[in-house]
Amino acid sequence: MSIESLKESVRNVPDFPQKGIQFKDITTLFKSGDNLLEISEMLYEQYKDRGITKIVGIESRGFILGPVLATRLKAGFVPIRKPGKLPAPVYEESYGKEYGRDLIQIHQDALSENDIILLHDDLLATGGTMRAAYHLTKRFNPKKIFINFLIELEDLKGREIFDKDTEVTSLIKYGI
Amino acid sequence: MSIESLKESVRNVPDFPQKGIQFKDITTLFKSGDNLLEISEMLYEQYKDRGITKIVGIESRGFILGPVLATRLKAGFVPIRKPGKLPAPVYEESYGKEYGRDLIQIHQDALSENDIILLHDDLLATGGTMRAAYHLTKRFNPKKIFINFLIELEDLKGREIFDKDTEVTSLIKYGI
Repeated sequence: MSIESLKESVRNVPDFPQKGIQFKDITTLFKSGDNLLEISEMLYEQYKDRGITKIVGIESRGFILGPVLATRLKAGFVPIRKPGKLPAPVYEESYGKEYGRDLIQIHQDALSENDIILLHDDLLATGGTMRAAYHLTKRFNPKKIFINFLIELEDLKGREIFDKDTEVTSLIKYGI
Repeated sequence: MSIESLKESVRNVPDFPQKGIQFKDITTLFKSGDNLLEISEMLYEQYKDRGITKIVGIESRGFILGPVLATRLKAGFVPIRKPGKLPAPVYEESYGKEYGRDLIQIHQDALSENDIILLHDDLLATGGTMRAAYHLTKRFNPKKIFINFLIELEDLKGREIFDKDTEVTSLIKYGI
């Protein structure tokens, strides 16, 4: 199996959630067990020698592959969630959306300075949510933070908002 | 590792999300890679001989273990989501909550009559959401539907709302 065949399993939905947006639907990708296993192995190969201790996934679609890779790497899984979902004390970070701002939260006891962290989400568009997640994770002063997306929309240049010394990877790229 | 040691990793949060509720916080369970792997293996042992072709997980916390078990079983993963999240045509089902009703949706092309399905969510309380998910899944007329929860609150007797011939399992039980 190849990246190209995985790409063919992603469904392109025009004008969702609003006119002009070509939505990348990953449900058609994940409904194949072969795809899921292949993606898990590809990500494992990429990150197996990095000493990763925690995968941090962003609600909701970052919860799908995050724990799969965590299990494969024998790392823990930590969720970043929308407000009101995490029951214990949290840190929070706001980020700009098209209309107004949004908040994401992480438990204050979720990570430590001994962790090597892989932040994961399904899609890199403009990168605003992941940048907020990166700042949240930074507060724990971990040894290292890596960033991974399943899909990257390269024409939106989302990766430019991350520091040059932060390694950002994506499995499936849609070029300019 | 034992069920008892997993249980010790679940954090009990009093009065969340409202007074009188003892919330079972699974984030403290999943932040340990050992726990995640152990749970994955326990679920795998339980379901490996059932011919399961799809794991259906309910947003958001059902997305955490659903894909882990799907990958282990070489099955596909299908999400049931809140309204407005799935981009292609959906079936939907409403269910009663404490105040008013809620909707869940599944893509119309997500499953087929050839599937053997394991429905998964993190917690069985009164069972209303899972019953709606069961009805959604039934519409595809699959060969068989199994139901699994990570945690069951036995005193709420949620399992009584499922048909006697539907196998409902849970890994961690809180008794009466």
